[in-house]
Amino acid sequence: MSLIVTGTVAFDTVETPYDKRERCLGGSATHFAAAASALTDVGLVAVVGNDFPDTDLESLRKLGIDCTGVEVADGKTFFWAGRYEADWNTRHTLDTQLNVFEHFDPKVPTSYQNSDFVFLANAAPELQMKALGQFNNPKLVVADTMNLWIDIARDSLCELLTKIDGLVLNDEEARMLTGENNLLQAARKVLELGPRLVILKKGEHGAFLIGEGLHFSLPAYPVEKVIDPTGAGDSFAGGFMGYLASVGNTDPQTMRRAMLYGTATASFCVEGFSIEGLQTRRRSEVEARFNELYSFITI
Amino acid sequence: MSLIVTGTVAFDTVETPYDKRERCLGGSATHFAAAASALTDVGLVAVVGNDFPDTDLESLRKLGIDCTGVEVADGKTFFWAGRYEADWNTRHTLDTQLNVFEHFDPKVPTSYQNSDFVFLANAAPELQMKALGQFNNPKLVVADTMNLWIDIARDSLCELLTKIDGLVLNDEEARMLTGENNLLQAARKVLELGPRLVILKKGEHGAFLIGEGLHFSLPAYPVEKVIDPTGAGDSFAGGFMGYLASVGNTDPQTMRRAMLYGTATASFCVEGFSIEGLQTRRRSEVEARFNELYSFITI
Repeated sequence: MSLIVTGTVAFDTVETPYDKRERCLGGSATHFAAAASALTDVGLVAVVGNDFPDTDLESLRKLGIDCTGVEVADGKTFFWAGRYEADWNTRHTLDTQLNVFEHFDPKVPTSYQNSDFVFLANAAPELQMKALGQFNNPKLVVADTMNLWIDIARDSLCELLTKIDGLVLNDEEARMLTGENNLLQAARKVLELGPRLVILKKGEHGAFLIGEGLHFSLPAYPVEKVIDPTGAGDSFAGGFMGYLASVGNTDPQTMRRAMLYGTATASFCVEGFSIEGLQTRRRSEVEARFNELYSFITI
Repeated sequence: MSLIVTGTVAFDTVETPYDKRERCLGGSATHFAAAASALTDVGLVAVVGNDFPDTDLESLRKLGIDCTGVEVADGKTFFWAGRYEADWNTRHTLDTQLNVFEHFDPKVPTSYQNSDFVFLANAAPELQMKALGQFNNPKLVVADTMNLWIDIARDSLCELLTKIDGLVLNDEEARMLTGENNLLQAARKVLELGPRLVILKKGEHGAFLIGEGLHFSLPAYPVEKVIDPTGAGDSFAGGFMGYLASVGNTDPQTMRRAMLYGTATASFCVEGFSIEGLQTRRRSEVEARFNELYSFITI
């Protein structure tokens, strides 16, 4: 398996200014894997409850996602509910029920342990480290995090940052983690905490990647009609890592290209609820959007 | 003269979270001309009061700006006062005194009338049309506007839009003018109103340019330390038009490159109060920042 993701598989109830979906398939690892699956083989380490329907698991498998690492535990699947304002930038979390995820003890299947590319989707840093410790010398480990862990688990997060290659975070998280308002300075301060790569996501305003001798900035793909932004960040990471894993290297030019793949898969994600925008996408469609985006940024 | 700008020359009192300047040289045409002057010959059509010091006029002339079109009227120079919040995105206008600008009747000197490139900086659309009518068949006319005119002079603004080649506006103005929240859709609706080019500025999030068969999106230059954002939009336009005028054509590739020049001069602008960030910049420095920005966006 070339790429593994650990994180949540969940049910999401999402309200947008235009529509609502109840208990649709969601979760950070779900979005990541769905996005990456268009570009590479991807394996999932997650836990679901015994309320999780086989049809949902089947729809992940149909995308080519290896679900060997999906544990079914006694109890209910992680549940999240949220509502978006009309500007899409303001999101209110209405409910979070950890359920079986609360006591999740990630077990990385033997068949995953030699994977070169690992993504630790948002979870408690302790849990991310537990998963990471089960891999044999991966080539590139990237993690995501959130404001909650910066707030209540800063020490563990800082420890994690010394063990990974890259951190993906949004503007608000970068400011919170570093106390620095200027995003470039904030990203540089994150580099000082350990990782050699930082991807700073700015939602509809794009993202930038910095590292030693590397600075790449990219606007978002201009989506004509946003349906649901849930999972955009994880889909970005899925396209980014999926492309790197498919090429098998992490040189600067490949990483710059990977930023476009991430942006392309994130744009598909927001065009539907749940993983609907990603589900029907194959590599050729991702390539087409890559080319379109490339034409928008090339002089 | 290759490039002419009509607009305000003003005194600005600016408060930032870190500093304050009283009655420093400002105005839309001032920032535009200062930015463009690094790249091309630029002439100014504006009015100042008899309180305007010769030293300020001299500092514009020192930049190579032709001030033949600067009229000195009896009364006080346009005055604006504003305050920025710590996020730099929120600006409070504290005072606006039109003074001599209230009855400004723009007179384009004969030596300017055959210019190929004309920028109508923000002013009442009627006034912009009055200035425009005095040019002999310019190659490219670009205008700026603001929420006030969209609100109180929409008909005149719509008339202006049928007479110009390009409109520069920010996200908020685009939404207000078109009633469209999605910025790409908004920009397309502006195209339907007449201009063949729309530049949509998103402040620290960059800008995009669209037109027939043309779509170019660019992040902002990552300024390490913002001193004063006043005039950034006009400096962007100055760099954009200054480059086009210096090259003398408006083909799509030249316009894409011009977006980088605009971004470079805007980044210099925000690094100082008034035109301090622009004043010492010559073409070689703008080229250096162009190259740096180019390296940030190239895969």
